[in-house]
Amino acid sequence: MNISLIPTAAAISREALINKSAVVFDILRASSTVCTALASGCKEVIPVVEVADAFTLAKTLPDNSFLLGGERGAVKVPGFHLGNSPLEYTSNAVKDKTVILTTTNGTRATRLAAAGSGQVFIGSLLNVSAVAKQLLEMDRDIVLVCAGTRGKFSLEDTLAAGMVTRQLLKLRQTKGFPSAAQRENLPLNGPVYPDEAPVVASHDLVLEDAVVAALRLAEFYGNNPLRALYDSLHGQKLAQMGLAADLAYCAQVDLLDVAPVYRDGKITVEQP
Amino acid sequence: MNISLIPTAAAISREALINKSAVVFDILRASSTVCTALASGCKEVIPVVEVADAFTLAKTLPDNSFLLGGERGAVKVPGFHLGNSPLEYTSNAVKDKTVILTTTNGTRATRLAAAGSGQVFIGSLLNVSAVAKQLLEMDRDIVLVCAGTRGKFSLEDTLAAGMVTRQLLKLRQTKGFPSAAQRENLPLNGPVYPDEAPVVASHDLVLEDAVVAALRLAEFYGNNPLRALYDSLHGQKLAQMGLAADLAYCAQVDLLDVAPVYRDGKITVEQP
Repeated sequence: MNISLIPTAAAISREALINKSAVVFDILRASSTVCTALASGCKEVIPVVEVADAFTLAKTLPDNSFLLGGERGAVKVPGFHLGNSPLEYTSNAVKDKTVILTTTNGTRATRLAAAGSGQVFIGSLLNVSAVAKQLLEMDRDIVLVCAGTRGKFSLEDTLAAGMVTRQLLKLRQTKGFPSAAQRENLPLNGPVYPDEAPVVASHDLVLEDAVVAALRLAEFYGNNPLRALYDSLHGQKLAQMGLAADLAYCAQVDLLDVAPVYRDGKITVEQP
Repeated sequence: MNISLIPTAAAISREALINKSAVVFDILRASSTVCTALASGCKEVIPVVEVADAFTLAKTLPDNSFLLGGERGAVKVPGFHLGNSPLEYTSNAVKDKTVILTTTNGTRATRLAAAGSGQVFIGSLLNVSAVAKQLLEMDRDIVLVCAGTRGKFSLEDTLAAGMVTRQLLKLRQTKGFPSAAQRENLPLNGPVYPDEAPVVASHDLVLEDAVVAALRLAEFYGNNPLRALYDSLHGQKLAQMGLAADLAYCAQVDLLDVAPVYRDGKITVEQP
């Protein structure tokens, strides 16, 4: 199993995704909102890129069957039912509804990730374990896709990618895979790479440098993920806008047991 | 002071560098070798991109005044005096000589970083404090330029960038700058960003998300930087090639008190 990481939506390439499991992270706040809406019992989330697309799509749906949600500049779109705060997506509000969601970054990243990959999950801190479990079951190579902030590396998305990696490694060990250190008899504990031509045939786990870095961020911030959100550009902006409650909510690891999947333009929770 | 980070040589842009202090990191092994050669008393290091350029330049210099050094595929170039192991660049070997150096990644990153920036330093784990001190004295915005490995994020270069950032923050505090937490009265200790239009006028330090991540890597690996080298793709490749001694050498923080500067095609240590 090979795990790689794409740091921004702009860096997504089709080649990097072919036949892999992808996870899209835009944890402040789009992917946290999607996970919350589906855990609250909404029927499906349809991400659209433009506000106009949202209104056009809404016209094709029966009255009261849908909600318009999303933001521009972190503020609710005029005429929409809901903004982009996951706290608005309660069971009371969204149960059995279709949520049409448009956000600045996450929608684009999700659609791009879907072009070529075998399966696209929506990841956040809220559903780390649920996503890791699905990734292990799929047993494909994995691409962790961070949406990024304004085209740049984002701390909070990379942390979430690292948390999922950490949980995945734990689950693998529980399943009896030898750890990298056990396999290689290394004096140090780091994950192990093969060279381009693997030197050791038993290499069954390859982590890119960027994934190792994400994993180390998970270890650094693991006991206090909220601190990472306050360390990040986007988190500080939201806090300054009075949205500290959203940060506190989005920082809760494994609050939800959902692994949303994006397919054919819709995000749903697979029923077992 | 604004600190940003460029993760790979390919991502260097002139705009990101204008009037800033840049530090180039290619710690396995080019930048560690440059620092070692200059600390060992060589006259100057001239980085060139191609092997042919090295031979051409050598023909213009007096016999015995120069050494040809460098690698392709981590192996010494045929006909060269030295490879790219910093351990070869002893005082005995290089004192008062011009070293003509060609390496796969670091040379390119150094030249690109010089296009536009106010000053280019050569950074490694070996000279963290010396570089941080110079950056503070320059008092310009800073760009940490990681050479990367095969066009991708590299753990070891990012760690070194984080170590320099950490030392810089320590030096600033010693000089009486208030810490981010003191300034903002934040419940958490993270560095603080302004928004695009700074909300707080006293913001005098801005760290990009990627720099915060590098700083956290420095905190994670700070007591054992060698572990990061073994966690990295390139470090593992070198170890497999029998170059573990180079890793152990390059992992020594602040072994050397030099802050090499690249200017007009040459790297030298500024004399006070």
